[in-house]
Amino acid sequence: MTVLILTSEQDVTADMAVVELNAGGIPVLRLDPAELPGGVGVSGEFAHGAFHGHLSVGGRVVSMGGLRSIWVRRPGTPASRASAASAWLTEEATQTLYGMLRCTDARWMNHPDAARQARHKPWQLWLARACGLPVPATLITTFPRVAREFTERYPDLVVKPVSGTHPGDNGLAVPTTRVRPGEDYRDVAHGPTLLQRRIRKTADIRLTCVGERMFAARAASGQDTDATDGIVDVRFSAGAGPWRPVAVPRRIADAVHGYLRRAGLAYGAFDFAEDTDGIWWFLECNQSGQFGFVEIETGQPIARAVAQWLAGEPLGPPLDPGEEGEWTLGGAEHG
Amino acid sequence: MTVLILTSEQDVTADMAVVELNAGGIPVLRLDPAELPGGVGVSGEFAHGAFHGHLSVGGRVVSMGGLRSIWVRRPGTPASRASAASAWLTEEATQTLYGMLRCTDARWMNHPDAARQARHKPWQLWLARACGLPVPATLITTFPRVAREFTERYPDLVVKPVSGTHPGDNGLAVPTTRVRPGEDYRDVAHGPTLLQRRIRKTADIRLTCVGERMFAARAASGQDTDATDGIVDVRFSAGAGPWRPVAVPRRIADAVHGYLRRAGLAYGAFDFAEDTDGIWWFLECNQSGQFGFVEIETGQPIARAVAQWLAGEPLGPPLDPGEEGEWTLGGAEHG
Repeated sequence: MTVLILTSEQDVTADMAVVELNAGGIPVLRLDPAELPGGVGVSGEFAHGAFHGHLSVGGRVVSMGGLRSIWVRRPGTPASRASAASAWLTEEATQTLYGMLRCTDARWMNHPDAARQARHKPWQLWLARACGLPVPATLITTFPRVAREFTERYPDLVVKPVSGTHPGDNGLAVPTTRVRPGEDYRDVAHGPTLLQRRIRKTADIRLTCVGERMFAARAASGQDTDATDGIVDVRFSAGAGPWRPVAVPRRIADAVHGYLRRAGLAYGAFDFAEDTDGIWWFLECNQSGQFGFVEIETGQPIARAVAQWLAGEPLGPPLDPGEEGEWTLGGAEHG
Repeated sequence: MTVLILTSEQDVTADMAVVELNAGGIPVLRLDPAELPGGVGVSGEFAHGAFHGHLSVGGRVVSMGGLRSIWVRRPGTPASRASAASAWLTEEATQTLYGMLRCTDARWMNHPDAARQARHKPWQLWLARACGLPVPATLITTFPRVAREFTERYPDLVVKPVSGTHPGDNGLAVPTTRVRPGEDYRDVAHGPTLLQRRIRKTADIRLTCVGERMFAARAASGQDTDATDGIVDVRFSAGAGPWRPVAVPRRIADAVHGYLRRAGLAYGAFDFAEDTDGIWWFLECNQSGQFGFVEIETGQPIARAVAQWLAGEPLGPPLDPGEEGEWTLGGAEHG
């Protein structure tokens, strides 16, 4: 039974998990949908009441019936590297590849439908609250008047994009920024605006979840968070400390498990802001969030946990036992 | 409790259902996401453990908590008519609108995730067979050799696009076409190709499903289906007869109910080919298929059934009792 990994060629994070799978003797097929058709071939026959599908890459052919799991890491757009690339060919290749993979019994990390749903920020905030996570008061609106009223109730606010992406679509993120007093909200009418009560944070928390396992890391905030140019985003903050492993409070662990279960996610990277009372405030859950930087700084064996989940069976002793160490209440059962 | 209809301004099929809802006294809010932001406004607040969302169009404001159902008919792309339209603004507006609607208790026709899954043709063929519908032997492949072997086993084939769309993206459909003997399959390597055993059909069947209700219509095939230029698609055939109501065989009704249940669809338009033995062969299920032309030719009250489902309660006597008539085994319970 093979693990299928859909990702681009340059993906060192995927490499980390592949090393573990190889060491455990688990067959892996790695391919980039961008290469279909071309370097990647696909075939499926529906006849005599049965479906038989095959994938081919680099001369190797694997039966879809023999897939144990599918890791949707960072796949390219289907057919984007084809000799006759077009929007139409992309649609044909997308439906062919993902349509057939949906017919298999393989486990998904993450299923495309769950992944798509999980990207909606308003739904994330709603689900987090429903699962018992603390969520800062948030407004998303196209009404300038409503934005002004919200500011009166919550004077200390940050603003960020709803989708978390950058207008220039250049791979950069937009930093979360403090709202200046007396802000003019007229432009809110031209695009949905997300305003959120600012958490006076002492640290950023990244909680990486792999199946039932959780790896929490904490980066203490810099001294002068309040004194800078208004950017409060850890990704842009020079003062943030290094990532260090941290224990997960039981209530948070239970709430996060509930979130993942209701969202149908096998993987999720949660961002929290820790306040001066030690409360973890939910900011977002990225269903395809990176974990390489956390693993490198903390030594937490996240890639190994991913490999374990994909394998669906014990992988034998860790490659480097000295770096094992899982910071979760329920971890001992799964480690 | 309001029915929300997401569709473009010009949508006479939606008009048909709106007339029924209006006659039944059910409040309707109709809007095109293309007008967000601009003609359409949206606002949602997440605070004190609750979510409160509002939609606004034409000066009318409706609470999202008061939505009974959402009909995703033919919505425009969010923000596509905005003054500062961009791919980024579309992403922001999409996540805002659909992200908030996902937080409501409203019933969907159809839920976006179910709709997306249902579009995958390979998955349709697989599910149809799993539910017990007859499916013609089908191959989807990028391997010329596999295509040639399939032709040897099934010499009488048709070819059609996997996605059902046209390469020119001009709103036209690609007709289903017979494969010529001795076809050169080398180009299969450049794009996934769908080959299907041709059904020697006596009629086309359109089965329109609305919740638990079914409306079947039959159009007898023209005399010279085999003698023409190879196009066997009813949409392009001059010889096809008019659409007439027809009874649904019990086995088909049971299988189709199973299909809709497993697909999570509240609406689906099934296309079958009826062969000389009277067998209905599954060709596809379009989760957003048109029904206006069937209703007009057959008099089947499909728009009324849609309105009834959206209302979720009896709508009173039909507008034109003379045209009632539902051709389904289970219809009497729901009519």
